[in-house]
Amino acid sequence: MLMEEAKGGKVTRQIEEVARAEGVSVEFVRRGVAAGRIVIPSNVRRQRRAVGIGEGLRVKVNANVGTSPDYVNPEEEVEKARVAVRYGADSVMDLSIGGDLDQIRRMILEAVEVPIGTVPVYQASVEAVARRGHVIDMSSDDIFNTIRKHAEDGVDFVTVHCGVTRDVVETLRRKGRLLKMVSRGGSLLAAWMIHHGRENPLYAEFDYLLELAREFDLTLSLGDGMRPGCLADASDAAQFHELLTLGELVKRARKANVQAMVEGPGHLPLNQVEMNVRLEKAVCDGAPFYVLGPVVTDVAPGYDHLVAAIGGALAAWAGADFLCYVTPTEHLGLPSVEDVKAGVIATRIAAHVADVAKGRDLRWDNEISEARKRFDWARQIALAIDPDLAREIRSRRPPVMDPKACSMCSQYCALKLAEEYLREAQKR
Amino acid sequence: MLMEEAKGGKVTRQIEEVARAEGVSVEFVRRGVAAGRIVIPSNVRRQRRAVGIGEGLRVKVNANVGTSPDYVNPEEEVEKARVAVRYGADSVMDLSIGGDLDQIRRMILEAVEVPIGTVPVYQASVEAVARRGHVIDMSSDDIFNTIRKHAEDGVDFVTVHCGVTRDVVETLRRKGRLLKMVSRGGSLLAAWMIHHGRENPLYAEFDYLLELAREFDLTLSLGDGMRPGCLADASDAAQFHELLTLGELVKRARKANVQAMVEGPGHLPLNQVEMNVRLEKAVCDGAPFYVLGPVVTDVAPGYDHLVAAIGGALAAWAGADFLCYVTPTEHLGLPSVEDVKAGVIATRIAAHVADVAKGRDLRWDNEISEARKRFDWARQIALAIDPDLAREIRSRRPPVMDPKACSMCSQYCALKLAEEYLREAQKR
Repeated sequence: MLMEEAKGGKVTRQIEEVARAEGVSVEFVRRGVAAGRIVIPSNVRRQRRAVGIGEGLRVKVNANVGTSPDYVNPEEEVEKARVAVRYGADSVMDLSIGGDLDQIRRMILEAVEVPIGTVPVYQASVEAVARRGHVIDMSSDDIFNTIRKHAEDGVDFVTVHCGVTRDVVETLRRKGRLLKMVSRGGSLLAAWMIHHGRENPLYAEFDYLLELAREFDLTLSLGDGMRPGCLADASDAAQFHELLTLGELVKRARKANVQAMVEGPGHLPLNQVEMNVRLEKAVCDGAPFYVLGPVVTDVAPGYDHLVAAIGGALAAWAGADFLCYVTPTEHLGLPSVEDVKAGVIATRIAAHVADVAKGRDLRWDNEISEARKRFDWARQIALAIDPDLAREIRSRRPPVMDPKACSMCSQYCALKLAEEYLREAQKR
Repeated sequence: MLMEEAKGGKVTRQIEEVARAEGVSVEFVRRGVAAGRIVIPSNVRRQRRAVGIGEGLRVKVNANVGTSPDYVNPEEEVEKARVAVRYGADSVMDLSIGGDLDQIRRMILEAVEVPIGTVPVYQASVEAVARRGHVIDMSSDDIFNTIRKHAEDGVDFVTVHCGVTRDVVETLRRKGRLLKMVSRGGSLLAAWMIHHGRENPLYAEFDYLLELAREFDLTLSLGDGMRPGCLADASDAAQFHELLTLGELVKRARKANVQAMVEGPGHLPLNQVEMNVRLEKAVCDGAPFYVLGPVVTDVAPGYDHLVAAIGGALAAWAGADFLCYVTPTEHLGLPSVEDVKAGVIATRIAAHVADVAKGRDLRWDNEISEARKRFDWARQIALAIDPDLAREIRSRRPPVMDPKACSMCSQYCALKLAEEYLREAQKR
């Protein structure tokens, strides 16, 4: 139990690995894990790369992959996971809901070194449909047994929508919304609760969930079933009622030595991003904040990776620790491998922009700028976040008149002129 | 003279047009123009669409087009201008430095309705090279005569790097920088000044420039020759020394009834964006701020449209009025028509995100979200910022099991589940 060991003063293998990767002291990481302000999702059965998420560490990026009932191609999902990691994803979530879910999950767990997350309630409801015809035809046991199965397979973190309580659903119902719910897991649970007239098992039996998590050192990612799905619904009562509930559950998780992070919106106008982050940090006592986007306008399907990069950069600068990527196909369909790459790179850029704004990782920027100063194109391209694309763009319209410059300015290159004449000024 | 008329209480055709387009009162626009906090670039010789830029108005987007010595294809530049306007550019700047510059400029002035800007010192130095062999072989008269020629052609605004004074260049020289200058116009002038040992004519003879501007009601865009070209150089003495100079020139321009805006960075870390905007607004007494990007990390050539959208959204939210687009080819080469489209859309998204954050233009977001709620895909796509792309993505992986949903979630669509079960809850 990582958190228990950290509380007891022990520096584990994971803590050492994270400290080394981040360039911080092991003591800093140990204290963060002990306090619950840093999580290192690392199932006792898997034990691959240790990735730290939380206060004082670099901003991390998650990529979602997974089949849908419409498109089932396990090899493609594995390829998406590999491409995501190649372009800088720090974790991968398998959100499959079509095909042989056990097989796909195990293939992804095997294929990449980064922490893997899942949303077990998906599988529980997909199996309910297969066995009994409808998503709500699942028992509380079905849900917990699926979580156990995922944990046994080595899944490092699971999204559990524990905050979708009857009270929170009642707030949603009373208050109303343009788009009621856009969280797949949250809506499955809400449907189940309403249909059966029962409390959310993940809330009612949270202690059992903690026991289960402890057994595998499974990190809980407390899902935001009430995340707003459009700007009109942002920062409303349902969203914050759920967040307050999650704040209580974070405390209970920490007491039980279970690592927990908190998921957040969603669609938010830019002016609400910082507030949402600070609110989570206050209400959840600094628990790592894992945001989806935020998507800061609803009008750009096809460009939602870019929209989420705007929101994500600001959120991460304000303190969000973990950015879930959004791909260009969000709101339109299942992403392809190319879309996964576009989503990861956009989100990586957002994360890096925030790290740099916090004064971290400036070396990368300075190195590429120094290469730019020297007109060292090979080095500039090698240092680019996507060297293949940078090379391709430059080769599309290569410089003609002046091979040192680029085809935009050619001999009128400002850098060259300024270097030449300022040197002349110096000599006088 | 628009500003003079506005000061005198007159509501001109341009002021009416802007007020109508923005949904604000003519009195608001008139006061803004009179105070110099709103500019409406509108050469007396052209008189096409009136576009207002400044306080209290929607954030505007400029797209740069233009040939380079390496690639000269006037028709393609005209097509870029047309595509830019089609995707939402509010103005176009012709930055051509290759081929028949007069012809290209006139073709672009003819082709689109939006205000057109240029940087006349480019042509002055290109002609200096052609006639005498070097960029610095131009006279002060050459520069002013080129400005006059552009004004006579109907150019609505010109970038003039008046703040690149000897003092400012000396600050740059003394202080040093990783990338000395990245402004093409600024570096041409600095080279000229250093070589000839003379003051910048655009500063020394600023009163003459104002006279010339008055003759055509030409709006001055006071260029930032010292804009930082990498994060390492951001917010340094040279940049702000120039800005202070521009603040003084804004006052002189207003006194002469010449409309003026101020150009800004450039490469800035995210944490310096808001400060830069507020500083400009303070130092330049609320003059419209026209920013290039800001580019908030140096490491992503190929994705600089996205990087600039992050910086631009934050800048515009903080008060920048006018975003100059950045294309994916920035730092690598001359953009193609497709790159222009990508740059305009990314910057349009940034501008809209800022408008929405300021509580403006929420209707568009709400309409697309309402279509989403109704599963009205045709309407969602029609309302998307790029309907063709949205349609193409959806058709790439169309829904199979449930045509109402999308291929990501199919029958597990959260929206559908929540609507269905919350309605059920309501009935009880």
